[in-house]
Amino acid sequence: MSYYGSIEAGGTKFVCAVADEELTIVERISLPTTLPEETLANVFDFFDQYELKGLGVGSFGPIDVNVQSATYGYITSTPKKGWRNVDLLGLLKERYAIPIAWTTDVNAAAYGEMHLGAGKQTQSCLYLTVGTGVGGGAVVQGAVLQGFSHPEMGHISVARYPGDTMESVCPYHEQCLEGLAAGPALEKRTGIKGQLLPEDHEAWGVEAFYLAQALMNYTLILSPEKIILGGGVMKQAHLLEKIRRSLEVQLGGYVNVPEEYIVGCGLGDNSGTLGCLLLAKEGV
Amino acid sequence: MSYYGSIEAGGTKFVCAVADEELTIVERISLPTTLPEETLANVFDFFDQYELKGLGVGSFGPIDVNVQSATYGYITSTPKKGWRNVDLLGLLKERYAIPIAWTTDVNAAAYGEMHLGAGKQTQSCLYLTVGTGVGGGAVVQGAVLQGFSHPEMGHISVARYPGDTMESVCPYHEQCLEGLAAGPALEKRTGIKGQLLPEDHEAWGVEAFYLAQALMNYTLILSPEKIILGGGVMKQAHLLEKIRRSLEVQLGGYVNVPEEYIVGCGLGDNSGTLGCLLLAKEGV
Repeated sequence: MSYYGSIEAGGTKFVCAVADEELTIVERISLPTTLPEETLANVFDFFDQYELKGLGVGSFGPIDVNVQSATYGYITSTPKKGWRNVDLLGLLKERYAIPIAWTTDVNAAAYGEMHLGAGKQTQSCLYLTVGTGVGGGAVVQGAVLQGFSHPEMGHISVARYPGDTMESVCPYHEQCLEGLAAGPALEKRTGIKGQLLPEDHEAWGVEAFYLAQALMNYTLILSPEKIILGGGVMKQAHLLEKIRRSLEVQLGGYVNVPEEYIVGCGLGDNSGTLGCLLLAKEGV
Repeated sequence: MSYYGSIEAGGTKFVCAVADEELTIVERISLPTTLPEETLANVFDFFDQYELKGLGVGSFGPIDVNVQSATYGYITSTPKKGWRNVDLLGLLKERYAIPIAWTTDVNAAAYGEMHLGAGKQTQSCLYLTVGTGVGGGAVVQGAVLQGFSHPEMGHISVARYPGDTMESVCPYHEQCLEGLAAGPALEKRTGIKGQLLPEDHEAWGVEAFYLAQALMNYTLILSPEKIILGGGVMKQAHLLEKIRRSLEVQLGGYVNVPEEYIVGCGLGDNSGTLGCLLLAKEGV
């Protein structure tokens, strides 16, 4: 019997899984991201146990997704030690002579959620993860969104919440979404870890304002049928409703979004893995 | 002989054209946008002279582009007197029993530019017009970008230029791109019409800042292979270079955009008409 493989390649861990034709996960493993050679040796050990017929990879970035490019399949300018300019896709192809789908971790999650999770019955959806960083992916008219490169939605410019003068935690941008609303920004603003912050703390209003402002811009630019929010910060269930309310205020009645537009993940922590498996199966 | 027809339905004028199989324009007419009945009577008089095999319509909005919707083909919540909730596509279909393509004016322009103009040899491009209003359309992976609705890129939220306290000219948003950077905003900020403003006036720096900020966000969300700028304000040739420089500063080195990324129109004032004709020909 042969299987589909999935690699969610993250900066902290590599989640590898194999699944059967119905995408039922047969085995799954989480490997620490150390140096490429060591991490890949563990990845190979895992997949070598199986006969694979396709592999889907959703990687941390930035990565090169341009098939015309000489560095297609590379992790490019990451600050992650040892991983800059690593030909991840090439190393995998060298080991496994099978079709391998290649995109970002968040694009894979968006694809998984659209087909199997909260975005079912849509043709377009956006997935945003809010955690240590902020990253977004999207499916547009059924296909993973890529152009000259992949989206970097976490770094869009946002207007400041009135009176918020906190220095951005992003080394590149003084006022991008990640810099003002990622988990570390939330903690810097309050001195308290997000998961310990009371529901009625005003910092949640600030957090919701920034996230809603970004969702407003995603909406006005992409018009996705659904926006799905994941990541550590979104585990605070009350935040979702605060974002919905702020989005309504900020849109100012100019655009009416669909019912149940802003939702949590339908696949829990499996969005990325299932997205990769689906991409593997479809040979995308 | 039969022809393709094009309607660029604008709030000020309807530009109608017919073209042959090679999309060579045979006749073209500009009709003032008065009330729907009168305007359409003139439109019909024009097209009735020809045997049409397809029609492409790029309309001012907001419009309903959702084929599942009961009001598909309508101009919806426009403030333009007499045009709210007008079934423009339906009225055209009643008159002409031919395939009719239906999208926004700016999506049609993006499509025209991508296939025949400045975006040739790409599969994705974004078109932004900066004039009385600001509007954007895009082609993604070869298809006009639409989701639950069409993009409304002119209304994205932008952070203020340091010290700029001018009241937004948009009735919906205190700090959207259109409200702070459309032609009327430029004039309000200086008291001088844009075309009379000296090249070295500092207001051009403010204008470039807002437009570049928006282009940064479009880039980080959509990653188009090219961004094409049109409209009255962009007729100031020096503005293009100011925008490019500001974009580079604002991106902060985080993303490297392609060569010749921000450009003017390749089709002059014909982007929309040629886009509509192409959509008509392809029966999209």
